[in-house]
Amino acid sequence: MRYKITIEYDGTNILGWQRQLDGPSVQEYLENALAALTPATETKDKDLSTGSAPQVPVITRLTPEVQGAGRTDAGVHALAQVAHFDLERKIEAWKLREALNFHLREQNAPVVVLEAEPAADDFNARFSAKGRGYVYRILNRRTPPVLQKDRVWWVPVPLNVEAMRQGTKYLLGHHDFTSFRAAACQAKSPLKTLDKLEISVSGDEIVFTVEARSFLHHQVRNMVGTLKLVGDGHLRPQDVKTILEAKDRKAAGPTAPACGLYLSKVVY
Amino acid sequence: MRYKITIEYDGTNILGWQRQLDGPSVQEYLENALAALTPATETKDKDLSTGSAPQVPVITRLTPEVQGAGRTDAGVHALAQVAHFDLERKIEAWKLREALNFHLREQNAPVVVLEAEPAADDFNARFSAKGRGYVYRILNRRTPPVLQKDRVWWVPVPLNVEAMRQGTKYLLGHHDFTSFRAAACQAKSPLKTLDKLEISVSGDEIVFTVEARSFLHHQVRNMVGTLKLVGDGHLRPQDVKTILEAKDRKAAGPTAPACGLYLSKVVY
Repeated sequence: MRYKITIEYDGTNILGWQRQLDGPSVQEYLENALAALTPATETKDKDLSTGSAPQVPVITRLTPEVQGAGRTDAGVHALAQVAHFDLERKIEAWKLREALNFHLREQNAPVVVLEAEPAADDFNARFSAKGRGYVYRILNRRTPPVLQKDRVWWVPVPLNVEAMRQGTKYLLGHHDFTSFRAAACQAKSPLKTLDKLEISVSGDEIVFTVEARSFLHHQVRNMVGTLKLVGDGHLRPQDVKTILEAKDRKAAGPTAPACGLYLSKVVY
Repeated sequence: MRYKITIEYDGTNILGWQRQLDGPSVQEYLENALAALTPATETKDKDLSTGSAPQVPVITRLTPEVQGAGRTDAGVHALAQVAHFDLERKIEAWKLREALNFHLREQNAPVVVLEAEPAADDFNARFSAKGRGYVYRILNRRTPPVLQKDRVWWVPVPLNVEAMRQGTKYLLGHHDFTSFRAAACQAKSPLKTLDKLEISVSGDEIVFTVEARSFLHHQVRNMVGTLKLVGDGHLRPQDVKTILEAKDRKAAGPTAPACGLYLSKVVY
C-alpha cells in the first residue's frame, strides 16, 4: 500500500529534507517514525531434520523509504511538503497520521504530518508533481525580529516594493536561469518556466509568492537575493534582465537566507 | 528626560513583564540594557586637609526603573508593549533605540525596542494609558503546531466560530467581570468596560481581538477559555450570560494558555 502524506516542518535546527550522516533531517525523523510502526521480522534458521542448535535469530526491520516532493535545504521550512512511502499492511489514513505524529513527538521532531491518504501505486511525490509553490518572507523594519526569529529574513534598510515588482517581470516565463542556479545544482537543464512571482506587503513584511513546475537549486533564494538589491537601490529593475541574460551566477545577487523560505504547496 | 519605548517580546522563556528573583523578565532585560547606558559615578571620600589615605572608591550606578503599561504574565507575548523611564542625560531617540537593542542582544534577550521617543515629564506608561488591546490566537486543527509552536493555543477539536461570536455579545460593555478574574487580581473593582471582542478566522487560525481601557488579571485568557467551551459545544452561547451574572470564577471555563496571548497595543 502506497501512502501520500502532507507535512509541516520548522527547518531551523535540521539539516534539511534529506537524510544526512551528521545530523537530523526530516526524512530521518519520518523514517524513524515509520520504523516504529513497522513490525520487526524474526528469522530463525533452524534445521529441524538434523536437530542442530538454532542459529542466532536475525531481527529484520524493513523501514520504508520516504520520498519527498522537494529536497529543502537546512533552515528552509515547509507549510505543506508532500512525500510518499509504501507499507506492507493497510492502515486507515487518520490512524496513520496520528501514529506518525505520536512517533514524531517522541523524537521531539520539529515535524508534523498534516494529512495522510492512500495513493495510487504509481504515485510519486517527486515525479508526479505538476507544480511547486514557495513563499519567501522578508521582515523589513529597522529592528530585528523577536517573535518571527528564524521565520523571516530581516532586512533593516527600507525596500522599494514597486521597484522589486518591476524587476520580477523579467523573470516570469521560460528562461535559462543559470544566473540564479547554485553550483551544486543537479538539474539536467537550466531552462525553467516561472509561472508566478508576486510580491505582497503585510505590515512590516514583504512576502514573495513563487510558483513553477520545478526549480533549480537555490533558484528562489537567488531571485529574492537579487530583487532585494533592486529594492534597496543597488540595482535598477531592468538590471534583472541583464543579470538573467548573463547566464552567470556571479552576475546575480547573493543567496537570500534559508530561514525566510517556505515550501508552501505541491500540486499534482 | 523621560522616554517612552514600544517593545516586542517573545514571552516563552521569561517569567513575564515584572522583575522576579527566580528568572528573567522583560523589565530586568530592559533595566540591564539601561544600566549599560548609564554612566557609573565614582565617589572618592578623600580628606585633603589631613592628608589621610583615600578611602575605597564607591562606584554607584543608578539604574532607571522601567515602568510598563501592562504586567504580562509568563509566556504572554507583546507586539507593542509600552514603557517609560527617566535618563539623566539627553539622548537622541533613534540612538537610544539602537543602544538598547545592542545591549538587549548582548543579553540574548527575546526583547526588542521597536521605537523610542521623548515623552512629557508627566507621561506614565501605565496610568496615562486610555486603552489596551490584546490578540489571542487559537490554532484549530487536528495536528499540533510546529512553525507556530509557543505562538498559539492548539485546540484539536473543531470549534464553532459562529457560536463563539454569539457568546461574545454578552461580554461586551460595562459588567462585573468577577467570573473572569484571577484570584490574584489586585484591581480595586471587578467592574470593567469591554469595548471590543471580535473573532476572525484566517486559515486554521481563530483570532480574538479584544480592547478595553484596562483588564482584570487573566480576564482575556478566562474569556477565551470560556468561549472555547462554547465553540466545542460544552456550553451554549447564552450560558456566557449566566456565567457572567454568577460573579463566580468557578462558573467560567479554564484559563486559556499564556502562549496564545499578545499585548498588541496601548493607546494614550
